[in-house]
Amino acid sequence: MLMLLAETEHTKVLLALFVMLAAAKLLAEIFERLHQPAVVGEILAGVLIGPSMLNWVQPNEITALLAEVGVIFLLFAVGLETVPAAILRVGKSALLVAVMGVVVPLLGGWGLMRAFGENNIQALFVGTAMVATSVGITARVLGSMGLLDAPTARIILGAAVIDDILGLLVLAVVSNMAKGAVDYLQLLKTATLSIGFTVFVALVAAPFITRVAPRIHRLRTGDSFFLFGLLLCLGLSVAASFIGVAAIIGAFLAGMALAEATEDNKRMHDLTGGVTEFLVPFFLVNIGMQLSLGIFKDPKIIGMALAVTAVAVATKLLGCGFAALSLGRRRALQVGMGMVPRGEVGIVVAQLGLALGVINDSLFGVVLFMAVATTLIAPPFLKCLYASEAAAHGDVDDNDAGGIVAERPLGRLG
Amino acid sequence: MLMLLAETEHTKVLLALFVMLAAAKLLAEIFERLHQPAVVGEILAGVLIGPSMLNWVQPNEITALLAEVGVIFLLFAVGLETVPAAILRVGKSALLVAVMGVVVPLLGGWGLMRAFGENNIQALFVGTAMVATSVGITARVLGSMGLLDAPTARIILGAAVIDDILGLLVLAVVSNMAKGAVDYLQLLKTATLSIGFTVFVALVAAPFITRVAPRIHRLRTGDSFFLFGLLLCLGLSVAASFIGVAAIIGAFLAGMALAEATEDNKRMHDLTGGVTEFLVPFFLVNIGMQLSLGIFKDPKIIGMALAVTAVAVATKLLGCGFAALSLGRRRALQVGMGMVPRGEVGIVVAQLGLALGVINDSLFGVVLFMAVATTLIAPPFLKCLYASEAAAHGDVDDNDAGGIVAERPLGRLG
Repeated sequence: MLMLLAETEHTKVLLALFVMLAAAKLLAEIFERLHQPAVVGEILAGVLIGPSMLNWVQPNEITALLAEVGVIFLLFAVGLETVPAAILRVGKSALLVAVMGVVVPLLGGWGLMRAFGENNIQALFVGTAMVATSVGITARVLGSMGLLDAPTARIILGAAVIDDILGLLVLAVVSNMAKGAVDYLQLLKTATLSIGFTVFVALVAAPFITRVAPRIHRLRTGDSFFLFGLLLCLGLSVAASFIGVAAIIGAFLAGMALAEATEDNKRMHDLTGGVTEFLVPFFLVNIGMQLSLGIFKDPKIIGMALAVTAVAVATKLLGCGFAALSLGRRRALQVGMGMVPRGEVGIVVAQLGLALGVINDSLFGVVLFMAVATTLIAPPFLKCLYASEAAAHGDVDDNDAGGIVAERPLGRLG
Repeated sequence: MLMLLAETEHTKVLLALFVMLAAAKLLAEIFERLHQPAVVGEILAGVLIGPSMLNWVQPNEITALLAEVGVIFLLFAVGLETVPAAILRVGKSALLVAVMGVVVPLLGGWGLMRAFGENNIQALFVGTAMVATSVGITARVLGSMGLLDAPTARIILGAAVIDDILGLLVLAVVSNMAKGAVDYLQLLKTATLSIGFTVFVALVAAPFITRVAPRIHRLRTGDSFFLFGLLLCLGLSVAASFIGVAAIIGAFLAGMALAEATEDNKRMHDLTGGVTEFLVPFFLVNIGMQLSLGIFKDPKIIGMALAVTAVAVATKLLGCGFAALSLGRRRALQVGMGMVPRGEVGIVVAQLGLALGVINDSLFGVVLFMAVATTLIAPPFLKCLYASEAAAHGDVDDNDAGGIVAERPLGRLG
């Protein structure tokens, strides 16, 4: 309806952008006030204004492009928080938690989908979407309780970051399998290239950039380091595409390569924050717009969504909890529950599957349901499980403490 | 050639974005080192990679969209530097300089084009493109000499800002004339609406926003004030389109409405800076890509470009100089020369004329030539005219002093 009022093509586009951004931020604000993740509000904004409900804006080429650029900057921002050296420091327990947190959900999701009669690639895609933990959500909850330095918090955050990397590697392999007949030689090549690319960025490019950073700062063009970051982000995204892995993986690695050099560079984080705050909502709203609510009229789909969510919770809780059992049962539960929220990366996987035509609207809806549900389920349980630590620590008010994590792009998104 | 290597549609788009941004920043860096305006380098980057020369990237729907969003944020950033109260304070001399700086070039450009045999609308468009002074270039030059507080500097900067507003008002009227047969009632309506809209934003909306700013800061969503700014920018752009004036005018007014509330808000400027540094290059490169170098094979076009440039310099120099004659002859010359550089706004007008189909490739090239030439001509003359003040002041090194203006988005662009 609103669309009909617009006169020219450009006005239409601007109006669509305005409606998307306004709806996203309105629902984000409402969700924040209900102490729920803003990211969920922004996705629901897309459902609300999209074809499923009000039909004010339809997904099209332009929203798809903005979403693509948005998700590239989202992953760049996630990478920017991922200092390679810090990952190498987290120690064996976090690594074990991370590996179990990848393997168990992947197998669990794959097995469940096979049981539902989906084919191998579809099952693998759903499994992959269940791998990556959302660093943002858990960090936000622990931050709001003043417990980011609790003994288990470091393990959770370290493992969640490793999960992201492993999840993206799995995605690289699975999306390559999806593109054609399964050619094991090609698969091996992709896996080797992805791992090689990641290791190269972490061990060679990142330290090199950290060393030459002062020279980049001496360039004369505007905020040269920020511009260098933008170019590295776009450049590695293109490079990743050429190698045959998703562009977002390149963007994540670009962020990671810059993480150490920009750790204390508030200006770099602010400039990047401006771009992500503007562009990421288009990614999230576009996700919501692509959800057909109609699929949930089918009882089989509802059953599948609930089953996938249950398996998603159980596999992280048991897999990661088991890996952390040496810390005692209560702490193992804390770690397991801390790894439950899927978020951006799970949604990115679903989105990519939809774009590649590997998963259909129904499976996309199921994965989206799982990502949103795990994000909503985990925080109250986490608050219970950490109640005694919080009491000892002096519970911090939710609003003020949000600021602790608010400086981090994902804290803001989560 | 590069394009052929790309596999998928999205990779192609990402590659085009990377090439555009990389070329823009490379030429900007080279131009900065040659002590020339970076904005000229970024336009030439577009000429270089566009169809005129290397043909690596072609202007298309997507580059047009990015350019449109880029120019909206450019004008938003210009507006953000335009505190309405400060304009009301600049006094009579600046106002007189500004009015003469609008009327004389408009009439001069229109008359010249009529003499060249162009029709009324084309002549008016070229005249309009000659109206707005680039605040960025002059501020940059005076800043690099440490003379931003010289007696004539304040007059120049104040008049340049008023020029921008008057120029955009003239554009609103002229672009409306261009859209159809000249309907004087409609024209009056547009003029009234544009002026009403501007006065409303300056006198009602801006003070209101300044007063409620603390409440917006209390919202919980991310950087609420920045997001409010983004929404206001897009919202007023759409509103301006509906009223029938260019979207950029809405964006400029949105920036102006926020200028006072954000005057000392470094974070707001950094966040906006992130968006403009990323998006504005696409506008400038797109401009360059649309230039057909072939038009300059025609001696008539070369003659026209030189004549338009000469008139552009003469009308500002004489018009503004005359208005400032009460300050003495040398200072009048300083003011006149300070108003010579056209920049972003002149280019925006040319771009809009091309998009509306009012001016053809040749006239677009002529206007672009004028904008670039005046930008290159003025700085060395300004340095001469201000030599004695600079000597008294102690000349500041170009590189260090760039920082004075570098905090302002246009200082960086100019």
